[in-house]
Amino acid sequence: MTAPLRFVSVLFPRVTQLDLTGPVEVFSHLPDAVSDLAWHRIEPVPTSAGFSILPTVTFDDAPQADVLMVPGGQGAFDLLDDAVALDFVRRQAAGARYVTSVCTGAFVLGAAGLLGGRRATTHWASHPLLEVLGAVPEHGRVVRDGNVFTGGGVTSGIDFALRLAAKIYGDNVARSIQLGLEYAPAPPFDAGTPLAPEADAAQVERSIAHARATREAIVRRAADRLVGGVSS
Amino acid sequence: MTAPLRFVSVLFPRVTQLDLTGPVEVFSHLPDAVSDLAWHRIEPVPTSAGFSILPTVTFDDAPQADVLMVPGGQGAFDLLDDAVALDFVRRQAAGARYVTSVCTGAFVLGAAGLLGGRRATTHWASHPLLEVLGAVPEHGRVVRDGNVFTGGGVTSGIDFALRLAAKIYGDNVARSIQLGLEYAPAPPFDAGTPLAPEADAAQVERSIAHARATREAIVRRAADRLVGGVSS
Repeated sequence: MTAPLRFVSVLFPRVTQLDLTGPVEVFSHLPDAVSDLAWHRIEPVPTSAGFSILPTVTFDDAPQADVLMVPGGQGAFDLLDDAVALDFVRRQAAGARYVTSVCTGAFVLGAAGLLGGRRATTHWASHPLLEVLGAVPEHGRVVRDGNVFTGGGVTSGIDFALRLAAKIYGDNVARSIQLGLEYAPAPPFDAGTPLAPEADAAQVERSIAHARATREAIVRRAADRLVGGVSS
Repeated sequence: MTAPLRFVSVLFPRVTQLDLTGPVEVFSHLPDAVSDLAWHRIEPVPTSAGFSILPTVTFDDAPQADVLMVPGGQGAFDLLDDAVALDFVRRQAAGARYVTSVCTGAFVLGAAGLLGGRRATTHWASHPLLEVLGAVPEHGRVVRDGNVFTGGGVTSGIDFALRLAAKIYGDNVARSIQLGLEYAPAPPFDAGTPLAPEADAAQVERSIAHARATREAIVRRAADRLVGGVSS
């Protein structure tokens, strides 16, 4: 008998909850797996969707992850200034088989020094900023570089998790979960990426400008710390 | 100035959390909208994915919903024997502009007497059982009959919510949310429905048999109450 595979996802205030809950739904259907949500303390953590989720473990008590996952959202950028959270991510990553993120969770991996020279993706609006942390930004719904899997924005987390499931458990298990989740998506519009025919070009421009204006200083500060070794 | 549109979703133990969190993510990006999660009490509600979500309102304190949404999961069938929950759904539905469900949440609408003669869908594994509650089961990722919108299994909730957003707020708003959520799905397999080329036929048969064995008695009991008028 082998130990169950341990999935540890980071939870934080103002997480884009679907970044987290999409993959965690997939993880919860994996055979012989345990999925935890980690935060500083066991307390309700408010998501950006207006409701709170409870962590299952603290950073101190979390088991060593086989798969570490960091979701995104506006709150992910607060973690770039949270030395304890970055240290947790760095320690966990050192012992994990897979180090993963969804959406702007990639910036947390980057700030923890885990994306240097690695191909990675993130939400399209923040994609250009990923380079600041030493990553090689690559467009793709799911990007794999060695043991680092990064997903694009929000809903890409479902595709990411199914791909990871296929990698670890084999295609049959992943296919079976996809069937159970009735994942035969039928979006009402062809508008899910900046290049989609029905995407709103003005919105794309505004969103990228907004991400740059609100996030660039935080990301550059995290990059400076990485170079200076302050965060090690 | 008009009042914000009110979305009220039912939360319950053993909810399939992605049934709930997919649509609620979409709702949270709608302009001038408030989204609540309702349960008997304000207490952590364990989902089937191993973590708990906090309700934002109780059944007693919930505002009248403009949009009522009931997600599914194994716990949805417990609500069929919960007269207070069914009464909440029935009262809310009477004043709501839209009455909606995702996955096996349709059985809760049905047990509340809201699907009589209505075309509706649910998760494929339980689809045949929907007839027991007087609904006209229709295959479809999202089925609309008048002001009743029902979604199929789990991930169909995202498509359902975007379609509802388009209906209420117009295509531009829904398209813009789809872009923000980077919803350009790329499932790893063509295995998301029982009829998909890569679906596992044996699993389909097992799942339907399992749903029938574990759920039929509960659904028939709810149907008997409906006919008897006990639950009115």
